[in-house]
Amino acid sequence: MKSGLAGRLAQLGRAVEGRLPQLVPPAAERPESVHRAMLYALTSPGKRLRPILTLVVAELFGQTSPVVLDLACAVEMVHASSLVLDDLPCMDDASLRRGRATTHREFGEDVALLASFGLLNRAFALVAACGQRLQLRRYGTEDMVHHLAAAIGSGGLIGGQALDLESRPEDLDLERLEYIHSHKTGALFLAAGELGAMAADARRRNLEMISRYAKNLGLAFQISDDLLDVLATSEETGKDSHQDDDKVTFVKLLGVEGAQHLAEELLAFAVESLEPLGRKAEPLRQLALFVGQRGH
Amino acid sequence: MKSGLAGRLAQLGRAVEGRLPQLVPPAAERPESVHRAMLYALTSPGKRLRPILTLVVAELFGQTSPVVLDLACAVEMVHASSLVLDDLPCMDDASLRRGRATTHREFGEDVALLASFGLLNRAFALVAACGQRLQLRRYGTEDMVHHLAAAIGSGGLIGGQALDLESRPEDLDLERLEYIHSHKTGALFLAAGELGAMAADARRRNLEMISRYAKNLGLAFQISDDLLDVLATSEETGKDSHQDDDKVTFVKLLGVEGAQHLAEELLAFAVESLEPLGRKAEPLRQLALFVGQRGH
Repeated sequence: MKSGLAGRLAQLGRAVEGRLPQLVPPAAERPESVHRAMLYALTSPGKRLRPILTLVVAELFGQTSPVVLDLACAVEMVHASSLVLDDLPCMDDASLRRGRATTHREFGEDVALLASFGLLNRAFALVAACGQRLQLRRYGTEDMVHHLAAAIGSGGLIGGQALDLESRPEDLDLERLEYIHSHKTGALFLAAGELGAMAADARRRNLEMISRYAKNLGLAFQISDDLLDVLATSEETGKDSHQDDDKVTFVKLLGVEGAQHLAEELLAFAVESLEPLGRKAEPLRQLALFVGQRGH
Repeated sequence: MKSGLAGRLAQLGRAVEGRLPQLVPPAAERPESVHRAMLYALTSPGKRLRPILTLVVAELFGQTSPVVLDLACAVEMVHASSLVLDDLPCMDDASLRRGRATTHREFGEDVALLASFGLLNRAFALVAACGQRLQLRRYGTEDMVHHLAAAIGSGGLIGGQALDLESRPEDLDLERLEYIHSHKTGALFLAAGELGAMAADARRRNLEMISRYAKNLGLAFQISDDLLDVLATSEETGKDSHQDDDKVTFVKLLGVEGAQHLAEELLAFAVESLEPLGRKAEPLRQLALFVGQRGH
C-alpha cells in the first residue's frame, strides 16, 4: 500500500477507536455488567475495516461531516454484536477472539447476550440519529435504517449464520459456502459502503457502484480470513489456533492457491466497478489491494 | 368492562394477530428454520396488550391510518423477541410460554437466538418505515426509532433483565423489584403508548400524559401477572405452573392483598394522568380496569 494511503487508513481506524467508547453508555452506569461487556466487545482489537469503508466512501463523495464517524461506529457496533453472538456455546462455541477471551467467557453467557442485543439496539438508535442530523436530499433516515436492517436480517448476517449452522460439512459446495459468506460478511460490508455513500447524498448510480464494490470486497475479505487461518499462527490472527479445522472453508474446497485466485477475482470485480469514478476512487482500490495482500 | 369496549379491544387484538404474520418473512423462504421460529414466537397466543395500547392511543388522538397497525405490530415484535431471550437456558430456562413449548425448546437454542435477533431487527425496520409513511409534523422517523431503542436498551428491557439476573433473592426489596419491572415491562408499555401518540402527531404535553399513564399501566400489569401466577393454574396462565416459586415477586414481598393494593394504586395514578383528556380517554380507563381485574 502507498504509505500515504496506508497512513490515512490507519488514521481513520484510530478515529473510529477513539469515538467508539463515547457512543455506548458509561461502564459505571447501571447495569454495569452489561455496559462493561458492551465496551469489551466493541473495543477489542480489530481492523475496523467496515467503518473505515464507510468513512472512505463518504469522503470520496465529498462528505466530511463528523456525523459520518458516528455512522461508521454504528456499523462497527453491529459487527461486534454479531461476533458476540457467533461465539456463544450454542453457535461456534469459541473461546478466543481478537486475541482475548470471547465476551461470554469473560462475562458469562447471559451478560454477553444482553450486551450483544444492547450493541444492536444502540446501532439502530445511532443510525437514525445520524440520518436526522445529516438532513440529506436523496435519502431519509428510513433509507439508512432499512439498509442496515437488510444487512442484519434474513438476507444478511442472520441468514448466513442460520445456513452455516444447518449445513453439514458434506453438504457444503462452493455455491453454498459463497451464499453463507456473502451473507455473513458481504452484507455488512455492503451496508458499510452504502451508508457512506448515502451520508454523502451520492447519486443512485454511484450508490449502486459502491454496492457492487463493497459486496465483492467483503467476500474477498472472508476468503483472506480463511487463508490467514491456515497460513498464520493464532498469535497473528488473535483467534483460536486453527479454529477452522472442523469447518468447511474456501481453502478446504479450493486449496490455498485456488482460494487466493478466487479472492483476486472478486477484488478485480470490486475494482472494476469503480471505473466510472476515475482517480478519486483510488483509496478504495488501495483498500482492495490491502485485502488481497492479507491472504498471501 | 363495558361490553362495547371489551368487544372493541378484542377486535383490535384480532387485527394485530391478523397482521403479524404478514410482516415477517414467509416461513418457506431461506433460512426456513429461523423464519418458522420467528413466526412461532410472534403468533403464540397472547393478550396483545402493548399493540392494543398503541392502537387505542393513536385513535384517541384522531389517527386512523392503517400504518398504525404496523407500528403496533412492531411493538409486539420487540415483546416477542424479549420473551424468546428471557426464556433461554442461560436466562430463566423456561420450558413453557403462552401454553406452548418455548421457542428454544421447539427449535433449538441457536435458531431461537437468531429468531429473537431477527424479530428485533424487523421491528426497527418497520418502525422506520412507518415513521416515513406517516409524514408527521411534530415527530420524525428518528424520534420513533429513538423511543423504541430507549425501551429496549439499558433503561428498558435490557437494563431490567440485567438487574434481575444479577440480584440475589436476599437483595430484592420493593424498590429494586420496582426498578426491575418498570424496566422489563414498564418501558415497552411506555414506548407502545408513546408511539401511538406520536403516530397521531399528538402535542408534546399529550405525549407526556400518555407516558405517565403507560408506565404505570405497565407496572400494574406486571404485578397482576405475579398475582395470576399465584392465584391461577398453569392451564389458565399458559406458563410453567408456579414458575415464580424460586423468584422474588411482588406477591412474595407484599402478600396477595398488598400486591393487589399496589396495583390498584398504580392504576389510579395511570387514570389520574388522563384527567385533562376528559371523556375521550374512556378506552384507556377501561384498559386500566381490565388490568386491575386480572389480579383478582
